[in-house]
Amino acid sequence: MTRSAATLTRIAESAEVSPSTVSKVLNGRSGVSAETRARVEQALRTHGYRQPADRRRQPFIELVFERVETAFAIEIIRGVQRAAVSRGLSVVLSETGDRHTPGPEWLAQVLQRRPAGVVLVFSDLPADAKQRLALRGIPFVIVDPAGDPAPDVPSVGSANWSGGVLAARHLLELGHRSIAVIGGPQDMMCSRARLSGFRAALDEAGVPFRSDALRWGNFLREDGLNFGRELLQLPDRPTAIFAGNDLTALGVLEAARMLGLSVPRDVSIVGYDDLEIASWSGPPLTTIRQPLAEMGEQAALLALDAQGGAVRAARVDLATTLVVRESTAPPLVRAGEATVPRA
Amino acid sequence: MTRSAATLTRIAESAEVSPSTVSKVLNGRSGVSAETRARVEQALRTHGYRQPADRRRQPFIELVFERVETAFAIEIIRGVQRAAVSRGLSVVLSETGDRHTPGPEWLAQVLQRRPAGVVLVFSDLPADAKQRLALRGIPFVIVDPAGDPAPDVPSVGSANWSGGVLAARHLLELGHRSIAVIGGPQDMMCSRARLSGFRAALDEAGVPFRSDALRWGNFLREDGLNFGRELLQLPDRPTAIFAGNDLTALGVLEAARMLGLSVPRDVSIVGYDDLEIASWSGPPLTTIRQPLAEMGEQAALLALDAQGGAVRAARVDLATTLVVRESTAPPLVRAGEATVPRA
Repeated sequence: MTRSAATLTRIAESAEVSPSTVSKVLNGRSGVSAETRARVEQALRTHGYRQPADRRRQPFIELVFERVETAFAIEIIRGVQRAAVSRGLSVVLSETGDRHTPGPEWLAQVLQRRPAGVVLVFSDLPADAKQRLALRGIPFVIVDPAGDPAPDVPSVGSANWSGGVLAARHLLELGHRSIAVIGGPQDMMCSRARLSGFRAALDEAGVPFRSDALRWGNFLREDGLNFGRELLQLPDRPTAIFAGNDLTALGVLEAARMLGLSVPRDVSIVGYDDLEIASWSGPPLTTIRQPLAEMGEQAALLALDAQGGAVRAARVDLATTLVVRESTAPPLVRAGEATVPRA
Repeated sequence: MTRSAATLTRIAESAEVSPSTVSKVLNGRSGVSAETRARVEQALRTHGYRQPADRRRQPFIELVFERVETAFAIEIIRGVQRAAVSRGLSVVLSETGDRHTPGPEWLAQVLQRRPAGVVLVFSDLPADAKQRLALRGIPFVIVDPAGDPAPDVPSVGSANWSGGVLAARHLLELGHRSIAVIGGPQDMMCSRARLSGFRAALDEAGVPFRSDALRWGNFLREDGLNFGRELLQLPDRPTAIFAGNDLTALGVLEAARMLGLSVPRDVSIVGYDDLEIASWSGPPLTTIRQPLAEMGEQAALLALDAQGGAVRAARVDLATTLVVRESTAPPLVRAGEATVPRA
């Protein structure tokens, strides 16, 4: 009898069930009452049971989104796919729908499927699900671009604060001194970190932050359109706008177009994310690249390289970089001039 | 002994192997030499063997792309995902990479995974793979937006010819009589069908087709940019341009912007596809909607609803529709006037 089988026998005894029932619970099979299942899970936890990691792991990565949405999701899928291909695996996509965490049916399916690893985008897992995955040796990593990782789950994000610094420095170097900001949601850490980095770079350069020209949006094109129109009609019109993401920046582009302003001649615009659309706009967007594909790839590799279900790193933030395209240029008016000619 | 088991025994005898070897081959398991495997596959075909469709089918749909690319792929993924969720299934994503059809490793994996159905995007399957899937009762459907379906494989496309008709009629109704076309690749049936529909609608209205203002592109933004600049500088500048897809239309928008032309005042632009980016451009694009998500969903449902591995429909084309946004308007100059004022 192997060591693992001996352990299962002891667990079965303490839960007052047969070893085959323990095995059913471990492998997510049906035919066990909820009450018995709970007793077995409890016994597994009490004995500190850890299923050997490589036993019956299937050749795929489980990738979970709340919602498979737009260009953002495809970048992450592409990265996870890249990691999967490099290891000869496939990717299983699941959606949790309106819930913020995967539900019990999802967990039951995953326990049956026995993936080589789980990558969750944005979502967190209920404590119970974390335990059940952990004791089956199924490693999981969260891709968390929101910058607010759960402390007990390994996650991959990107350097939001540095991204804000990069955006500000680029505009400062071009000579901008009057810069508006349309941030993402005020309650998201990534939005706050980007703004905080942006302000730190202005401080460093001794340039005052225009708090009259700060708006908090919701990462939507409409935010860029509406706040952009408002900001571009201020009596003291900013010479540049830093948008919370590329979609917001596209809205600002449209606001400028509707007001008859030329980008970058009349106003410079910096986006954030560097989705594919950033290079397709008119003009193509200068933006801060958040390496979403690399984040997905890194999360998948961390999960796949976990030893005995334990992922090495608690949190990895990948670097953000400045991508200069055609939506930024020096302002028409040099810093220090008192009046700004209107278009 | 069940009827199926009896059949397997006869097949094993005729292939001169054990029944368990036949079972290994059927289920894609290892430990069988290539030579033996070929002999068993031959015997399975000779006996017209069909594995019962519902036996050991796993709860997921296999979705295969050559390359998980951009906004186009995400729409199809979203549709397949929708079908999967409606049946309580997951989606397994695979890429074939540079090959146009999935290779032998993929097939081996699929035979092991035993999906409820297979959806291939663009790709065709080698005849051998079709047979091996069919005799295991694994149904497959191709999503084929290129409009050139293999005759022996069920596929889902969209009404390309009608899409061309819709684009032309919309521009004709606005009063345009001088319309340029930047098509997709000349060797793709979808490009030819769209142009053919476009010309049919012009013919119907008695408006001559400007063959001097026809260009064949490659579905890229650069095609729109380069051909757009060329077409918009013709002495007899067209008042509208029908672009082969949305990406090409974005390039035309950029060409117009660089030439200081206003859209739709100076030139109207119609795209094709209705990707999400079509509503994000400046101005938002009037376009022909190709229902990519619905095509993915339909393909998945056709595969899942197949009886005994046999998919009902040979070819389904979903309708295309006109989506009017802000890139089209009546031309500045009414039809019939001899001269066109330049911007």
